[in-house]
Amino acid sequence: MTIKAVVFDAYGTLYDVQSVATITEEAFPGYGEVITQIWRIKQLEYTWLRSLMRRYEDFSVITRDSLTYTLRCLGLTNDAAVFERIMEKYLHLDLYPDALASLAAMKDRKLAILSNGSREMLNALVANTGLDRILAATISIESKRIFKPAPDAYTLIESTLGVAPADVLFVSSNPFDVCGAKAFGLRVAWIERVTTEAMAHAFRDRDLVPPLTMFKAIRMQMDELGFQPDYRIKALADLPDLLQLLA
Amino acid sequence: MTIKAVVFDAYGTLYDVQSVATITEEAFPGYGEVITQIWRIKQLEYTWLRSLMRRYEDFSVITRDSLTYTLRCLGLTNDAAVFERIMEKYLHLDLYPDALASLAAMKDRKLAILSNGSREMLNALVANTGLDRILAATISIESKRIFKPAPDAYTLIESTLGVAPADVLFVSSNPFDVCGAKAFGLRVAWIERVTTEAMAHAFRDRDLVPPLTMFKAIRMQMDELGFQPDYRIKALADLPDLLQLLA
Repeated sequence: MTIKAVVFDAYGTLYDVQSVATITEEAFPGYGEVITQIWRIKQLEYTWLRSLMRRYEDFSVITRDSLTYTLRCLGLTNDAAVFERIMEKYLHLDLYPDALASLAAMKDRKLAILSNGSREMLNALVANTGLDRILAATISIESKRIFKPAPDAYTLIESTLGVAPADVLFVSSNPFDVCGAKAFGLRVAWIERVTTEAMAHAFRDRDLVPPLTMFKAIRMQMDELGFQPDYRIKALADLPDLLQLLA
Repeated sequence: MTIKAVVFDAYGTLYDVQSVATITEEAFPGYGEVITQIWRIKQLEYTWLRSLMRRYEDFSVITRDSLTYTLRCLGLTNDAAVFERIMEKYLHLDLYPDALASLAAMKDRKLAILSNGSREMLNALVANTGLDRILAATISIESKRIFKPAPDAYTLIESTLGVAPADVLFVSSNPFDVCGAKAFGLRVAWIERVTTEAMAHAFRDRDLVPPLTMFKAIRMQMDELGFQPDYRIKALADLPDLLQLLA
C-alpha cells in the first residue's frame, strides 16, 4: 500500500479563503466577515448549480458573480476599483502557516493540486505563493467544464499524473470534496479544522451568532452523503507523519 | 401568448418550510430556528451534491441525512422518537396563508406541482393539506433520479401535462429553481418574499445576526447565474392578477 502522489484541494485546504476578510473589511468596515462568509458559500453553490444546469462558466466568473450577489444582498454599493481590489486578493490568498513546511517534508512524492479554480487563477496563485517550485502539477477542472464533486473532475489526477486512484492520497478540508473523492475511489484525508465540540459550543445558549459560526456549521462539518474519509487529521502539519504510517 | 398551465415548486413556494420551527423548538428549546435554517440549507445542498456525484437518493433520505447532519453539528443528542416527530412534520407543512385562495382563483388552468420531493412525501403532503382536490398533477423528479435545477427535471412538465414549455408559467420562490427553469425555457414568476432592502437592513451595524437572517441572505435573493425571472411578485396572492395580464 504505497502512496505515489499526494493531491491537494486548493481553496480552504492549502489556501485560507478567510484571508480575504482583511481586504473586505478595509473596503466595507464592519462587513468584512459577513462578506467573506456569504461570498464563499455562494461561490461553491454556483459551481454546483452551474454544473447541474449545464451552464458552465469558469471559476473566475463564478467568483465575480458570487461577490456581486453578496454585495447586492448586503446593500453595499461599490465602484469598479473596490470590486477589483477584492477580486485581486483571490490571486494572493494566504497559505495556511504549516503548508510550506508540510509540503517540503513530503517532497519525495509527487505533489499536486486539483482545484475548481480556473487555470489562470490557479497559476497566478501558485506562482504568487511560491508553490510552483514544489508542485509537480497544478490541475484545474477547467478542461472538463464541470466542477467537483462530479466524478469527471477527479479523473484528471490519473490522466495528468499517471498515478492510479488507489495510489493517490487526496487531501481536502472541504467535506463535499472528501465525499466526492471517496465516491470516485481515491484514498482521502480530511483536514478537520473545526471539531464538532467547538461547533456545538459556539451555538450554545445563543439566539444570535457571528456569520462565521453559521459558515462553519454549513461548510466545515463532515457531510452525510454516504461516505467517510479514510483519515482525519487536524492540520496540514499532520500529513508527513500520516504518510510515514502508510508507507 | 396564453398560459395553459401554472406549475408550482412545493417547498418554500406553496409550503412554508419554516413551519417546522415549531416542532424543532419543542424538541430542542432554544434551537428551533437554527435547526430549521441549517437543515434546509443542507437539504438543498445534498440534492445538488448527490446529483453531481451521481449518487442519487430520494428526497426523504436526503431530508433525514440533512437533519442528522444538523443535530450532530449542534451537538444535540436525540432518540428515534424525537427524530421521527420532526421528520413527520415534513408531511404536514403549513401552506402559505394565501395559497388556497390563489389556486382556487386560477382553477380554469391546469395547476400542478413540480418538486424535488419524493412521490411518497409529496402525495402525503398534498393529501394532508387538501391540494389533491385542486391540482391536476403532483410531479416528483423521482423518475429522473436527478434534482432541480438539472434540465431533465423540468422536462417532466411537458411529458406529464402535455403542455409545451412556452405555454407554462412556472412559479417558485427559490432563486436556484427560477434560474434552472429559465435556463430550460419556461416562463417564470419569482415570489420575492424578502426584499433586498429588508435584507440589507437586517445586517446593518451588526456583528451578530439571527440564523434566519443568514438563511435569507444565502437562499432568498435572486442568484447571479445569468438568468432573471420574467415576472417578480411578492406573494402567491399576486398570481391571479398576473395571469389576467398575460391572458
